[in-house]
Amino acid sequence: MDIFKAFEERYSHKEGFLPTEVPLTDLERIAKAGIAAPSGVNRQTVQLIILPNRDALAPVCAVAPTIGLETAPAAIAVLTDRTITPADAFNFEKEDYSAAVQNMLLAATALGYVSLWLDSPYFDPEKERQARAALSAPDTHRLWAVLPIGKPSVTGSRREKLPFEQRVTVL
Amino acid sequence: MDIFKAFEERYSHKEGFLPTEVPLTDLERIAKAGIAAPSGVNRQTVQLIILPNRDALAPVCAVAPTIGLETAPAAIAVLTDRTITPADAFNFEKEDYSAAVQNMLLAATALGYVSLWLDSPYFDPEKERQARAALSAPDTHRLWAVLPIGKPSVTGSRREKLPFEQRVTVL
Repeated sequence: MDIFKAFEERYSHKEGFLPTEVPLTDLERIAKAGIAAPSGVNRQTVQLIILPNRDALAPVCAVAPTIGLETAPAAIAVLTDRTITPADAFNFEKEDYSAAVQNMLLAATALGYVSLWLDSPYFDPEKERQARAALSAPDTHRLWAVLPIGKPSVTGSRREKLPFEQRVTVL
Repeated sequence: MDIFKAFEERYSHKEGFLPTEVPLTDLERIAKAGIAAPSGVNRQTVQLIILPNRDALAPVCAVAPTIGLETAPAAIAVLTDRTITPADAFNFEKEDYSAAVQNMLLAATALGYVSLWLDSPYFDPEKERQARAALSAPDTHRLWAVLPIGKPSVTGSRREKLPFEQRVTVL
């Protein structure tokens, strides 16, 4: 898909998914796009865990159920490896994981799927810990988001965007 | 450009630029990609300032010169409007600006330019304030990064990336 079409078509799918399976090759292609994103000081802090089916997804969903995680046929969990990130101002975990997520949302769109940047369930440190355990991820990692991926069961609604002129200035 | 080609071709250009001008229509297309990125709670905190020529870029460059800002024919400054973001844990400025930057780096690549996620000059609060003043941006905004955009004067070197298996797990 042309990249400018992907920018336009991507939206946050907050509805349910069809049970149609997502081939592992597509999930790997999306993950490959994620790790192709830049990272601060090229530390490559982002770690991805592909959940290719309901069996893999169910324990993570159980920690904090949402319509997306309850119905999606697959997902990709987005973590950072904190052993390679300093705790000070030169910590780029948020930037790193956000750039990786954006690449994956675009890649999913280009392959005909919908997805969602689902981070809110993991703002609660205890839920984050439980979900990380369900993923068998080490204690040295932090879970930031889980992206449900699949075909939509209903057409999702796009959030309204402010006009270009209100967000971009030419100096 | 096919989106998967853009993921592969994008790299952090840390060298100089040719003086070849970038048409404003291309800069606006890149900015449009930036504001098409998702934002936390759809707050659309990101504000972009297009610097379409050296006259616009020079005062920003003077605050913290780098080879990119000294030679680039154009740039886009990336800010957030802090009047619409809470100061607490539900502040998504970094996620918002990072997703917007990633879209713009990909869009620039697709249009045949190179760019760089240049944030380090603005880690220093005083430099950030000075650069923001050079951009005539209000005090309620925060400057996160300036992306120099143009044709490279020399081929940039790509950072080496860890293999897929070290960053992606299938559960």
